[in-house]
Amino acid sequence: MEKQADRQRINDLIARIEPLDVEAMEQARQRQENLTKPAGSLGRLEKLAIQIAGIQRRALPGIEQKVVIVMAGDHGVTVEGVSAYPSEVTPQMVQNFLHGGAAINALARQANARVVIVDIGVASELHHPDLVSRKVAPGTANMAQGAAMTEAQMLTAINVGIDILQAQQGVQLVATGDMGIGNTTASSAITADLLQLPVSQVTGRGTGLNDAQLDHKIVVIERALAINQPEPQNPLDVLMKVGGLEIAGLVGVILAAAAERIAVVIDGFISGAAALVAARLCPAACQYLIAGHTSVEQGHGHILRALELAPLLNLGLRLGEGTGAVLAMHLIEGALHTHNEMLTFAEAGVSNREEEEKN
Amino acid sequence: MEKQADRQRINDLIARIEPLDVEAMEQARQRQENLTKPAGSLGRLEKLAIQIAGIQRRALPGIEQKVVIVMAGDHGVTVEGVSAYPSEVTPQMVQNFLHGGAAINALARQANARVVIVDIGVASELHHPDLVSRKVAPGTANMAQGAAMTEAQMLTAINVGIDILQAQQGVQLVATGDMGIGNTTASSAITADLLQLPVSQVTGRGTGLNDAQLDHKIVVIERALAINQPEPQNPLDVLMKVGGLEIAGLVGVILAAAAERIAVVIDGFISGAAALVAARLCPAACQYLIAGHTSVEQGHGHILRALELAPLLNLGLRLGEGTGAVLAMHLIEGALHTHNEMLTFAEAGVSNREEEEKN
Repeated sequence: MEKQADRQRINDLIARIEPLDVEAMEQARQRQENLTKPAGSLGRLEKLAIQIAGIQRRALPGIEQKVVIVMAGDHGVTVEGVSAYPSEVTPQMVQNFLHGGAAINALARQANARVVIVDIGVASELHHPDLVSRKVAPGTANMAQGAAMTEAQMLTAINVGIDILQAQQGVQLVATGDMGIGNTTASSAITADLLQLPVSQVTGRGTGLNDAQLDHKIVVIERALAINQPEPQNPLDVLMKVGGLEIAGLVGVILAAAAERIAVVIDGFISGAAALVAARLCPAACQYLIAGHTSVEQGHGHILRALELAPLLNLGLRLGEGTGAVLAMHLIEGALHTHNEMLTFAEAGVSNREEEEKN
Repeated sequence: MEKQADRQRINDLIARIEPLDVEAMEQARQRQENLTKPAGSLGRLEKLAIQIAGIQRRALPGIEQKVVIVMAGDHGVTVEGVSAYPSEVTPQMVQNFLHGGAAINALARQANARVVIVDIGVASELHHPDLVSRKVAPGTANMAQGAAMTEAQMLTAINVGIDILQAQQGVQLVATGDMGIGNTTASSAITADLLQLPVSQVTGRGTGLNDAQLDHKIVVIERALAINQPEPQNPLDVLMKVGGLEIAGLVGVILAAAAERIAVVIDGFISGAAALVAARLCPAACQYLIAGHTSVEQGHGHILRALELAPLLNLGLRLGEGTGAVLAMHLIEGALHTHNEMLTFAEAGVSNREEEEKN
């Protein structure tokens, strides 16, 4: 019953996601052509301004408030020895987030972005006034022995993501972040299955595996896919069988943001896996996405190419937490500052090339 | 006499430029290894923090004040029809900078960086209380018919750059910017000669030439090099014969910043040409440089590879003004925010991988 309601809410949300506003984008494009610079000389900044005009349905879009939503969850598959760090690090890092001592805290303070930490599936008990406690389960089951989640858990986790996004009032830019020892394993499994690529091509060293450990991780993922047989045409089946609670939560965040016409800047591989699931559920949702950066994890590049998203940054990051996405926020805001604040050739009294040619 | 004094001051400055502080860099490296993240997972941000520690001689470096220095000058070679825009645009854009309406103004406001506009060689008279008027000559001579500058002009322009940098009190990060119709032509000529590459490989469309205009630009540069025969082993000879007043000014800014142990984030092709001259005059100066981005102008990539500088951004920019450098300031500051503000594993009570392995 509840499962049916959760599924219906997701379907209703997807039905509300519309393509970008073509008229606002055209107005923004014309404005860009008249600003005091050679046409096209601001490159990606111009495209970002036009995209966000389409998202916000206005020629002069704005970003007043930003948030990074960090979903934390544990992964049963860690018992197979797929990570360089023990699972205890997941709750320890959540505490670190809540005390402001992690990379994402430092970068979010710099970017003036609110940090929302969500316990959607950490294996241990966590209590803190600033923690959003929406634990669906104390971690996933071991996908190397069966499905990572029940269908009900997977649907509930997506709905938690929808709830969290919808609770953010007055926000115009959302970054996705993640914490969960073992979550590159889940992301590789999702990516291999949805893109139908060999596991070895989409699996990396995560937090720092050596060669032998990487080989073992690949074998574990291959076993998980063989045992679960997730259907590549059914993104929710893939998510349920080899995904993670935090990945499902981020799927909900992305879909809800697109439905609310809010731009989403995605972080690295884990956010990418969530974006891939979301895009397969609703291709139009992809138009609301901005790829913050490209991760060292090789699977991430495959996802970005599949979604035709060009990353803004390539800084050799592989931390997660939303760090690459929050760094990219500065560039996105730079796009709007130039778009909204620059004078046109006429306003500034600068000779435009086109005018010269007409003379 | 004055020429001799100008040359002596440059030599004295170069003699003061030291390599980075190895001890501070080692301390910063050790700190990075103990912060709550997998070792190396912040990629380029970690390297930036360590570099700036070496520049500032302290394990916890800081950036309180930032400035972008925009050098404006005209180019006699524009009479050959090498630009898509007329020369009048140089003073018009300087006025636009002074009124705050250009891209660099919008981006500098966002980054909280001061904008310093210097008339080092604009062909027309300019007056404004915020303009730094240090005109060495009303533009360069036409390098397709002879040397662009006299030796005295070239040396004076470098010294203007030194003066401007030394006048910036309390600044820890400097961005280089430029304005000057025709300055990609000068930059291509410098790059072709110093790197001994064919002109066609280092020449691009500037503000927007078509194919025929690009071919013509290449021919003009080849003629300038044939007539002037600048000596590739003598960077000041190259700068004098085929450079620009604003490029010479930026050479002075870079050398003076290195001497004062201030990090310099360089912008695109014009700043790159200045960095190339500065690095040939004093290889150690290169250690103080951060490449903000890679420009669409193909010559810029050759310069960055020659200087072994990896650009932070690749956003398809080709505007100049310092825009790419100021955008990159956010990433540089992000590197210091994470370096200085993150907790260590011990401080945060997070299990480190190394500790686990020791147990």
